[in-house]
Amino acid sequence: MAALSSESFTFNQIKGISEKASFCILLYLICLQFKLKNMWKFPGGLSEPGEDIGDTAVREVFEETGIKSEFRSLLSIRQQHTHPGAFGKSDMYIICRLKPYSFTINFCQHECLRCEWMDLSDLVKTENTTPITSRVARLLLYGYREGFDKIDLTMEELPAVYTGLFYKIYHKELPDSYKTMTGMD
Amino acid sequence: MAALSSESFTFNQIKGISEKASFCILLYLICLQFKLKNMWKFPGGLSEPGEDIGDTAVREVFEETGIKSEFRSLLSIRQQHTHPGAFGKSDMYIICRLKPYSFTINFCQHECLRCEWMDLSDLVKTENTTPITSRVARLLLYGYREGFDKIDLTMEELPAVYTGLFYKIYHKELPDSYKTMTGMD
Repeated sequence: MAALSSESFTFNQIKGISEKASFCILLYLICLQFKLKNMWKFPGGLSEPGEDIGDTAVREVFEETGIKSEFRSLLSIRQQHTHPGAFGKSDMYIICRLKPYSFTINFCQHECLRCEWMDLSDLVKTENTTPITSRVARLLLYGYREGFDKIDLTMEELPAVYTGLFYKIYHKELPDSYKTMTGMD
Repeated sequence: MAALSSESFTFNQIKGISEKASFCILLYLICLQFKLKNMWKFPGGLSEPGEDIGDTAVREVFEETGIKSEFRSLLSIRQQHTHPGAFGKSDMYIICRLKPYSFTINFCQHECLRCEWMDLSDLVKTENTTPITSRVARLLLYGYREGFDKIDLTMEELPAVYTGLFYKIYHKELPDSYKTMTGMD
């Protein structure tokens, strides 16, 4: 997990989920076995100040597993109050889908006991996992079988009118006809 | 806008979007005209400490417009760094879809000049709005015409295994067959 300064955003934990698109089999999830409770979970950690959601996910997956990847979409948000390790704040946990560029695992042995590419259907049926991991595994299986457009929130950059800056917005992909319509359609 | 204590979550601004499901016409959006820049925008504001996303949206819509509503879904997330009014932190702006229970507007005159139920297709074509409002209007028009299941992230409560507490998770609705599958399907 990345070092955390006092300025870090305690609300913004990012889960990284990797897609091994170049393989036909379902061995495309990195899973970490949680040290204390013997549970499979996805890699992830706290964001740095000013860091984009996708950048945190890519960085944390690399630090924890040695896998290089790129951000593809946002999948889910969890809000939890009185979360331990959230510095007295509520926790916002954001789950991303990534595409890997390397496949050789070199995992952080301080943070987990095992790290493997796991068959998604094996993850769905294992009991050694958390409710949220099991839920996201099912969501990913749905996306894998029926199209990731069913589950993805895609990212786009838009201008902030009052500051001249840009921000990133995430929502379900809008068909082109709606993006370009003038309201007279 | 709600009073903000020093403990509030600066990242969690909520936009409220209301659905007037009992009406066949498209007059189902509350829009506020922004005071300084003469722009139409959705009601919203900062969350209180420990407040759920949907509760913030419902509270802010009531405070700003007098409309009573309930949370239906999460639609979009915006992440903006160096956002003014975010107390030196990055800003997470979460956009919700609400269902109204009352329809008579009684708006906060300290915060806006005008407040009206506006035809969604009028909002899509107006130039007096921000890029994000225009984008969300198009997203809503897509959902209204082709089914809100195309754009909604629905909410569910799940148990946190290590603390015994519960949290709320938001993602695209999962078909029942995937919720109940054992991995052997």
